[in-house]
Amino acid sequence: MESLKEKIRQDGIALSKDVLKVDSFLNHQLDPELMVEIGKEFASKVADGKKVTKILTIEASGIAAALTTGLELGVPVLFARKKKSLTMTDENYVSQVYSFTKQEESDITVSKKFLSKDDHVLIVDDFLARGAAALGLISIVEQAGASLAGVGIIIEKAFQDGGNKLRSAGYPVFSLVQIESLEKGQVKFVEEE
Amino acid sequence: MESLKEKIRQDGIALSKDVLKVDSFLNHQLDPELMVEIGKEFASKVADGKKVTKILTIEASGIAAALTTGLELGVPVLFARKKKSLTMTDENYVSQVYSFTKQEESDITVSKKFLSKDDHVLIVDDFLARGAAALGLISIVEQAGASLAGVGIIIEKAFQDGGNKLRSAGYPVFSLVQIESLEKGQVKFVEEE
Repeated sequence: MESLKEKIRQDGIALSKDVLKVDSFLNHQLDPELMVEIGKEFASKVADGKKVTKILTIEASGIAAALTTGLELGVPVLFARKKKSLTMTDENYVSQVYSFTKQEESDITVSKKFLSKDDHVLIVDDFLARGAAALGLISIVEQAGASLAGVGIIIEKAFQDGGNKLRSAGYPVFSLVQIESLEKGQVKFVEEE
Repeated sequence: MESLKEKIRQDGIALSKDVLKVDSFLNHQLDPELMVEIGKEFASKVADGKKVTKILTIEASGIAAALTTGLELGVPVLFARKKKSLTMTDENYVSQVYSFTKQEESDITVSKKFLSKDDHVLIVDDFLARGAAALGLISIVEQAGASLAGVGIIIEKAFQDGGNKLRSAGYPVFSLVQIESLEKGQVKFVEEE
């Protein structure tokens, strides 16, 4: 996705060889038009015949892209909660996710009311690094007995092992951009063939 | 906003006299079309002459409506973080917010890079109850020396004191629906004049 690469080139900051900061348009401040483009892009990737019935993401940084994808596909968006709210009184699917940027493990929770074996689910998230969040969300889809349309990722850090982990397990991954390295403060993209 | 009232009548659940559960369309599962309508409604409320430059909300449940409002007004959306991420390396505005539904106090944080005295800010959030989140966000706007276009609220629980607190302090509050009571499992709306 060329416009996203351009945005990353302009505004992304390689904080270290592992961490890309995109807080000016993706995970603190949001660029709404870019989010709409991203939603259209994800929607176009899942033309696999079977109709997607639900978008699943995880709070908080995944919500914006999940919303625009749901808008484009005309389906509800569900975001896994990281902390149980007092209003979550129903039975839940739960899985454990370790966040490397926040350095803590947490349960993620989705109410059983909103995901069932009849669903065909597109997972959407902002980053794919070691795959912890994606695997947590896939576990929830599997607990529900639902089928997986794919995992839509805005930025894949291809130098970490999450993408390989998911693909070698047979899950379809749609990454809008793949980053080869962040060495020496430079963002280098994986070249498309 | 009639379509929102209808949605609350159909799918909202008065869990107790204080708590309205709207997780099927607002804060766990999201109805994307309704979010777009809500964004248009907020955008129409701020026709006060001075151009809004930024939407400010708080993760996670405020993000969807903030995004659609930003899309409608053509301005960036900024969401306050509840937990400091490793990538938040800049100087921040910080304020303290107590969450009654989660029963904990937390710092909310906004990078100083994204809010300045030149901004005219519309705050957007899903609920207004005791006003803790709104006052925390207003404090951040004031710390930045920015001006406040208003506080856009999807559901105001008018039987709690947040709305009065904000209005008597002179802050413009735009609530899309106001709830008079949740007694006996019944959602009763404030009648419009």
